[in-house]
Amino acid sequence: MSIINLAIVGVGKIVRDQHLPAVAANADYRLVAAASRNAQVEGVANFASIEEMLATVPSIDAVSLCMPPQYRHAAAVAALEAGKHVFLEKPPGATLSEVEDLAALAARKDVSLFASWHSRYAPAVEAARAFLAGTTITSMRVMWKEDVRQWHPGQDWIWQPGGLGVFDPGINALSIVTRILPRQVFATAATLEFPENRDAPIAASIRFTDAAGLDLEAEFDWRQVGPQSWDIIARTQAGEMVLSEGGARLSVDGRLVHGEPEQEYPSLYRRFAEIIRAGRSDVDLAPLRHVADAFMLGRRKVVEAFHD
Amino acid sequence: MSIINLAIVGVGKIVRDQHLPAVAANADYRLVAAASRNAQVEGVANFASIEEMLATVPSIDAVSLCMPPQYRHAAAVAALEAGKHVFLEKPPGATLSEVEDLAALAARKDVSLFASWHSRYAPAVEAARAFLAGTTITSMRVMWKEDVRQWHPGQDWIWQPGGLGVFDPGINALSIVTRILPRQVFATAATLEFPENRDAPIAASIRFTDAAGLDLEAEFDWRQVGPQSWDIIARTQAGEMVLSEGGARLSVDGRLVHGEPEQEYPSLYRRFAEIIRAGRSDVDLAPLRHVADAFMLGRRKVVEAFHD
Repeated sequence: MSIINLAIVGVGKIVRDQHLPAVAANADYRLVAAASRNAQVEGVANFASIEEMLATVPSIDAVSLCMPPQYRHAAAVAALEAGKHVFLEKPPGATLSEVEDLAALAARKDVSLFASWHSRYAPAVEAARAFLAGTTITSMRVMWKEDVRQWHPGQDWIWQPGGLGVFDPGINALSIVTRILPRQVFATAATLEFPENRDAPIAASIRFTDAAGLDLEAEFDWRQVGPQSWDIIARTQAGEMVLSEGGARLSVDGRLVHGEPEQEYPSLYRRFAEIIRAGRSDVDLAPLRHVADAFMLGRRKVVEAFHD
Repeated sequence: MSIINLAIVGVGKIVRDQHLPAVAANADYRLVAAASRNAQVEGVANFASIEEMLATVPSIDAVSLCMPPQYRHAAAVAALEAGKHVFLEKPPGATLSEVEDLAALAARKDVSLFASWHSRYAPAVEAARAFLAGTTITSMRVMWKEDVRQWHPGQDWIWQPGGLGVFDPGINALSIVTRILPRQVFATAATLEFPENRDAPIAASIRFTDAAGLDLEAEFDWRQVGPQSWDIIARTQAGEMVLSEGGARLSVDGRLVHGEPEQEYPSLYRRFAEIIRAGRSDVDLAPLRHVADAFMLGRRKVVEAFHD
């Protein structure tokens, strides 16, 4: 295949802000169709359902699935069964088991499945990984604090069971942490704060450790007003590392080491084309597994009702 | 190694009821030591901690870890680092990630790790698996309803975060279901009922499906008084299959097909010796993954306080 004929399913804010510009700028792809219940993409064939789209446009090679995670599995099965490569927007599903099931199906159909973690492609992530590989970490703090009203206005699905609540952004932090640390971590305690009128947490803290006894604490909060923070701070024998702005800037002892323009979605689409051409899948469930672990292990605390 | 020198850690009810008789009856093992904070095993060397035990009795080949899951990882690391084979009582840990970490450590140390699921060794489980493999299943119901006051009197750890609550018995059902079904399943919805004074659920229901659209519903309840039920009922094209008494009895259309004496722990210890001698591990996390998925996906409902 020279050019990959791509279709996008679930046309919302993230598709318009990120997927469409990234695809338009990448010569590996030709966008040929879109399917969405309530939205359309200009200049391509539009459908109300993925089933109708797959039946009508046989030239599709690959699909990006961008609907809420609760609805991703059925669409992924339809695409994989039709022999299409599949890009899953994060999180890859509402459960770990359904994504394991998709990975097995992709292997049987001999197509590529990509469980994407866009924050892993933030500009300074690889530099942070290289820095940490060359030193010893004594402790790490993750602070992911944002205003849900600003970033997810009126997105009801995010508050529903399976919508993950504050872990929707928090899983971005976990996707970075699991990439930059030299060893696997695991949660030892967690607290999840549920608004009394919602089915997903508005705040959470998780303590992690690893086989070497790492002291890692992550705080996720959706009630942050004023300055927002998407920061990972590590105390190391080589100084204090700060990976800030969601992985965009890396500094050590206050000195900027790495700061380049953000290229997350362009990088994701380069990666997707790469695994399609290599005949491989890329499905790392560690970030979602940590969220599931936190739900299983965590203490639940009911807090003030949240109204959008 | 001709005889496996075994040590047991975490001496409680399940050890006295099941582990000690099973080990005593199996010529593959010699029980040489035990470690427990508050209890002792007669006739062997006893220690207050696993670290002291491992340092004092170098002849130990393998350890069974039977403390609550929240404390299992640290003990497992101590044993694996000392080059011992490790048997994990179910559930294998408080998180999926820590067990993945143990599996990686066992592989590095070239010793066997066994994540045991005793109910998989119930007498009629393999017969149920064979029956289902030869037919088409239209629906399945799991009913695991028992009186927590009778089966877990005063066991506070079970109500703490990471103690799993009603999933402590429920995971036994899931360990059977994942063994007897022909395909992987995954949760699509769940409800978890938390007593207002407890950190773990007292009841739960989970809906599952699989790639073929199976209709599977599991109900777990710890508030059952009167007759207890540990039943799995499948409607199939070959009749109604009932796997009852926790996997002990199999009947089809009311006719008893398989019913033999219970041999779960003797079978587990046979399996553990087998993987040690074969130089392999046996770590299937599917049952725990389904529980984590249910916590992540599930709707939380607060119910009446529970007092022991």
